[in-house]
Amino acid sequence: MHRTKVKVVEEALDANNTIARANRADFDRAGVKVVNFMSAPGAGKTTLLERVVATVPGVRVGVLEGDVQGSMDADRLASLHVPVTQLNTDPGFGGECHLDANMVRSALGALPLDEIDLLVIENVGNLVCPAEFRVGEDRRVMVASVTEGEDKPLKYPLMFRTCDLVLVNKIDLLPHLDYDLDRFLYNLDHVHPDVERILVSARTGDGIGAWRDWLSAVAAREEALA
Amino acid sequence: MHRTKVKVVEEALDANNTIARANRADFDRAGVKVVNFMSAPGAGKTTLLERVVATVPGVRVGVLEGDVQGSMDADRLASLHVPVTQLNTDPGFGGECHLDANMVRSALGALPLDEIDLLVIENVGNLVCPAEFRVGEDRRVMVASVTEGEDKPLKYPLMFRTCDLVLVNKIDLLPHLDYDLDRFLYNLDHVHPDVERILVSARTGDGIGAWRDWLSAVAAREEALA
Repeated sequence: MHRTKVKVVEEALDANNTIARANRADFDRAGVKVVNFMSAPGAGKTTLLERVVATVPGVRVGVLEGDVQGSMDADRLASLHVPVTQLNTDPGFGGECHLDANMVRSALGALPLDEIDLLVIENVGNLVCPAEFRVGEDRRVMVASVTEGEDKPLKYPLMFRTCDLVLVNKIDLLPHLDYDLDRFLYNLDHVHPDVERILVSARTGDGIGAWRDWLSAVAAREEALA
Repeated sequence: MHRTKVKVVEEALDANNTIARANRADFDRAGVKVVNFMSAPGAGKTTLLERVVATVPGVRVGVLEGDVQGSMDADRLASLHVPVTQLNTDPGFGGECHLDANMVRSALGALPLDEIDLLVIENVGNLVCPAEFRVGEDRRVMVASVTEGEDKPLKYPLMFRTCDLVLVNKIDLLPHLDYDLDRFLYNLDHVHPDVERILVSARTGDGIGAWRDWLSAVAAREEALA
């Protein structure tokens, strides 16, 4: 019974990876680099995008916005005059807690790939399942808010282990929290040694320049990324 | 294809409800009331439990601790000398993002039901799937941290709609946030009109008395709860 369940899950992930590779081939053909952008609910993904999407020098950024329901985040980003496509996960069954490769594939026709250089896919707010499903991305970025506590890398290791960049957000709140930043970074290095990290505050603008530069560097790479 | 997927999901939820009812019958027989305790990662569930589990007057509280990996939260609570049972969701398949009725059923034998009056099941940190799976609880409580923003009831409506109590946590940070509490409460009432809510700060102790009283009232009910 348990073995059967494991097998079904493995087959589903295998099918997902096949579709993710097809997405990736389409993105590569269009010359579009893709970032899968993940975090827990309320960590600040949308605000961190608002801060940069319209101002990466020489890079046309588009956003694919994944939500269980609604289009609030898409509306916020569209007001910055960048192309935004909404993808809702709820039709038919109570709401998926993550994007998978097939959902992204279903949105490909609606994405203006000719008009962008970099696509940021804002995933559903969740630290578990989004880490298990590749969607065709070149790079994975996650946001960890300092308000969430120092222990999160140890509790959600797959997410922290499979990302290429960790944005440590809301650092303006550090003086008001019982939060030990060194301990968080120690825990982070324990599950993903030396992963790139940038300390940011979407609110004050601290670190936003480095975040913009990181996106710029991803978009500028000529070759397909690993 | 899509209809098939919906049908599979419906059958899985139906099977889950059957097992949840069996759990509930076992809890009722033992005279144990059960709270399903949910939130996003880092909203403060464990700290809010630390504040009360050993001090609900005349009520013996036990905790079933759900995590993808590790036993950090269980260790914190066990140090308060209350019975704590750990349930990890990772064996076999990358980590489930929620507890379901069958996982809780598998832990029943390890729970000291004779020695407790109230069982708090701390779910995996996630605002989507935990809301879809009943586990045999009498009451559902969720924590919404003010650091997560005002829009969360609209983005994760099922979670907010199916809980009996919302603990609005980290209110000590309100002076340092661009957060409109009235707007959050307006959004909350939009998806779940007049749901009970308590403003709390696990850090300063604000509202903790009311949270303890709420648990006490649940445990004191003679009859089985709806």
